[in-house]
Amino acid sequence: MNYTNLDKIAAWTKLQSLAPAGKNFNFASLLDAERVKSCTVPMAGSLVYNWAAKVADEPILAALQALADEQELIGKYRLLLDGEVMNTGEKRMVLHHLLRGQSGNNVVYEGKDLGEFYKKELDRFSVFAELLRAGKIKGSTGKAFKNAVQIGIGGSDLGPRAMYIALDNWAVKNGRKKINAYFISNVDPDDPSAIVSSLDLSETVFILVSKSGTTQETLSNELFVKDKLSRASLDPGKHIVAVTSETSPLARNPAYLDSFYIDDFIGGRYSSTSAVGGVILSLAFGPDVFAEFLAGAHEADKNALEKDIRKNAALLDALLGVWERNFLGYPSTAVLPYSQALSRFPAHLQQLDMESNGKRVNREGGEISYVTGPVVFGEPGTNGQHSFYQLLHQGTDIIPLQFVGFEDSQRDDDVTVDGSVSQTKLKANLAAQIVAFAKGKDDADKNKFFPGGRPSSLIHGKQLCPAALGSLLAHFENKVMFQGFVWNLNSFDQEGVQLGKILTKKVLSGNSGDGALDAYSALLGIKI
Amino acid sequence: MNYTNLDKIAAWTKLQSLAPAGKNFNFASLLDAERVKSCTVPMAGSLVYNWAAKVADEPILAALQALADEQELIGKYRLLLDGEVMNTGEKRMVLHHLLRGQSGNNVVYEGKDLGEFYKKELDRFSVFAELLRAGKIKGSTGKAFKNAVQIGIGGSDLGPRAMYIALDNWAVKNGRKKINAYFISNVDPDDPSAIVSSLDLSETVFILVSKSGTTQETLSNELFVKDKLSRASLDPGKHIVAVTSETSPLARNPAYLDSFYIDDFIGGRYSSTSAVGGVILSLAFGPDVFAEFLAGAHEADKNALEKDIRKNAALLDALLGVWERNFLGYPSTAVLPYSQALSRFPAHLQQLDMESNGKRVNREGGEISYVTGPVVFGEPGTNGQHSFYQLLHQGTDIIPLQFVGFEDSQRDDDVTVDGSVSQTKLKANLAAQIVAFAKGKDDADKNKFFPGGRPSSLIHGKQLCPAALGSLLAHFENKVMFQGFVWNLNSFDQEGVQLGKILTKKVLSGNSGDGALDAYSALLGIKI
Repeated sequence: MNYTNLDKIAAWTKLQSLAPAGKNFNFASLLDAERVKSCTVPMAGSLVYNWAAKVADEPILAALQALADEQELIGKYRLLLDGEVMNTGEKRMVLHHLLRGQSGNNVVYEGKDLGEFYKKELDRFSVFAELLRAGKIKGSTGKAFKNAVQIGIGGSDLGPRAMYIALDNWAVKNGRKKINAYFISNVDPDDPSAIVSSLDLSETVFILVSKSGTTQETLSNELFVKDKLSRASLDPGKHIVAVTSETSPLARNPAYLDSFYIDDFIGGRYSSTSAVGGVILSLAFGPDVFAEFLAGAHEADKNALEKDIRKNAALLDALLGVWERNFLGYPSTAVLPYSQALSRFPAHLQQLDMESNGKRVNREGGEISYVTGPVVFGEPGTNGQHSFYQLLHQGTDIIPLQFVGFEDSQRDDDVTVDGSVSQTKLKANLAAQIVAFAKGKDDADKNKFFPGGRPSSLIHGKQLCPAALGSLLAHFENKVMFQGFVWNLNSFDQEGVQLGKILTKKVLSGNSGDGALDAYSALLGIKI
Repeated sequence: MNYTNLDKIAAWTKLQSLAPAGKNFNFASLLDAERVKSCTVPMAGSLVYNWAAKVADEPILAALQALADEQELIGKYRLLLDGEVMNTGEKRMVLHHLLRGQSGNNVVYEGKDLGEFYKKELDRFSVFAELLRAGKIKGSTGKAFKNAVQIGIGGSDLGPRAMYIALDNWAVKNGRKKINAYFISNVDPDDPSAIVSSLDLSETVFILVSKSGTTQETLSNELFVKDKLSRASLDPGKHIVAVTSETSPLARNPAYLDSFYIDDFIGGRYSSTSAVGGVILSLAFGPDVFAEFLAGAHEADKNALEKDIRKNAALLDALLGVWERNFLGYPSTAVLPYSQALSRFPAHLQQLDMESNGKRVNREGGEISYVTGPVVFGEPGTNGQHSFYQLLHQGTDIIPLQFVGFEDSQRDDDVTVDGSVSQTKLKANLAAQIVAFAKGKDDADKNKFFPGGRPSSLIHGKQLCPAALGSLLAHFENKVMFQGFVWNLNSFDQEGVQLGKILTKKVLSGNSGDGALDAYSALLGIKI
């Protein structure tokens, strides 16, 4: 396999030659009904990726296809699926795809078939969830559980939280909701205090999530919760489940009601389809719902094996993103779901993307001389329209947009006003924004002039159901993976989080050895 | 008064000459204890603005002071306070400062003293809130209200919601919390459906907020709610309060329990200190808490009158932001509050900043040839550390950072782990991150190398109480205002939201006249 920096390949030169025309792409005259209908790639289930409002024509797509081929993106994906050590910095395999189904060879590590291992854990926590939901696993006073609280941070929080919010209304509507889920993440004591004080702890199970079993925030919050359980005369051992790796201090610990395992090959930000997301989602909505979610992700993973960029939505999305970042020069991307259920999905994508590809060395630790991962941010539409869209429409920078929308709402509870239901208004706003951003509007009053030329893509589908959510999640995971391959990065480590941890420990030890650090500590009233 | 584009003044040339050295500012050797202690500006109350980790030295500050003087920033602020038409596009005054106290001349419009008008409305909704909190204003079945639901979008949602979340724990701890607040904003029907179905409507009052009384999302959600109230055999007229302008269709409407007024001189994103934020905050926490919040904002407004940038935190913050945006070339800014209570504060600032200064023409509608408002995004620390901080530390772009932190938690409910309480760990993480971003760390393994050179500022204070929150909010409002003056913009209109509205109406009318728009509508399953 060929691992080459992006600026050393032939496609780099070709795309640079196309960039000046790309910056003046004529949206207003090109974006017609025919283009909207034809610029689509089917995704998993009912989902479709539409790139009609992107800066893309035949020569550009041909150059992007050449880039995909030259960087051997599908070949690298297949290697990853087969268990190649793609996390080069930490010398680990990258196996989150295997959590939802097998698309490559069996992966065996130290004599253990890891596909079987992940399946066994899935089966174990599925049974656990069924028993708990049925009231057969009870709290220490004999009450059935009504609440589940996840204690975790970063990948153990953002993804599972976003997925829970995304499916909550669907589950209520479809009679699957049984347990209310809550999340504690921040070491700010107000975070656990507010959640814990609002719940009847005798009816509450906690899910302690830390792969390493050493995450400072999570262990502090565990002890916070244990203290509250003890004060309420409850046995913490009957109220806490651990999700961790088998080698962590939390593993096989009789202090927990049960433990479920992942391993080093499941990165935090890629762990929503593991026990990290699976336990809480299965408790809340049932293991069958989680299974549908996994099936949706697996279908997207299979679709991502296609070599033709016109038939592979994740691959095309990745390449268009590189085109915008490295050749058109746009440093950030907005994610704009027209679905209140996806209110925290942008925060998850922000981690997924920025932590994976916010890197300045290549996969071997060598220098690179081009920009990598963009800033990713977003809020749901229509809310964002009344907020930061002003800058998106009329600001001095161009920010590419990633829209998501669905034909049907999740709760099917709507009202007709002025001849249309709210769901129709939601979709009308979405369609209108895409066209407004692309085409703009001339006006003699320059304050009311819209330059247009703001590229966007649209993912749309029938409804945000568990399978669609799984597909959507996997789409973005695979997009980020492909972009990492294009940039020749290791998208699977996060050395950038280490320095802060080291300096924090120094502060807490009372001996930082840095005058500025001591002075900041003093300003903040830290007394050690 | 002199209104000149930024690139036409002497300070522009001076700052350009300083920029090359600024890009190589030597954080590692300059950032010592003395600098941390000395680079501070007192703000209102216990708050302090620290700029030790910014790219700033005496020549840079002198040039920024010259910029402030040359663009007459304080003079323009005084004009605004005195009722000059600073919203040039809409030909309106800009009077949100007057909501919290008077710092300029009396402002009289069409014979009405507007300071008196705002005070009268404040008094009216304060009395209303007291009566409702005391159970003297009841729902249509005679039950006292326990819940308040704000129906609004954009400025009628983000600011009030962020402020409510920011003070909720403080209010619980201090015995001021009486009513639970909820927010409905999106036209996505799942948003109102989920909220409304989770509440006992006989104990719920709704606050309908729309200045114009014509906001599509809000009116749709009003009818959604009215329908549910009627189906529950409740009288909507006893369960809905309006906050609007006196000229809106919602004004003086007997269909509402009561109505409170703002006017055209209070912009949506600047309305948290008006009835838009005041009614819900006063209901939830009491009018005395809202009064403390206003007092904190007023103190910050007064501090912002200081001409010396070394003594005016909002002014200095604004100028450093312009320095970073236009001269150092950084296109985005992250807001990172180390306080879970500020979890939605970045979303509010995102609107405040991007909607105010995401503009491409000057205040007279003339061309400008420099960049204006940056992308603003953020999440609370420590959560963000386990998410997008990877890119902030080791990405290829430099993103300036705005940290916020407090000495004490709000709930005073903490646990000691490994010799320190969680609040101390929270602060240690904050101090560590500032230094890590600025100084970086050398490493032979380039994957573990931190380049440093990431500038940040820190706002810190004793505790996030109502007054501190008011001061913090006003700080950012005034920062954004000063930046608008520097860029010679009108920061107070939002013409960029109009085109989407127009096209949405066309879609809903069934006759868009645009083939692409019809095709997108068809993809999304819109049937008119």
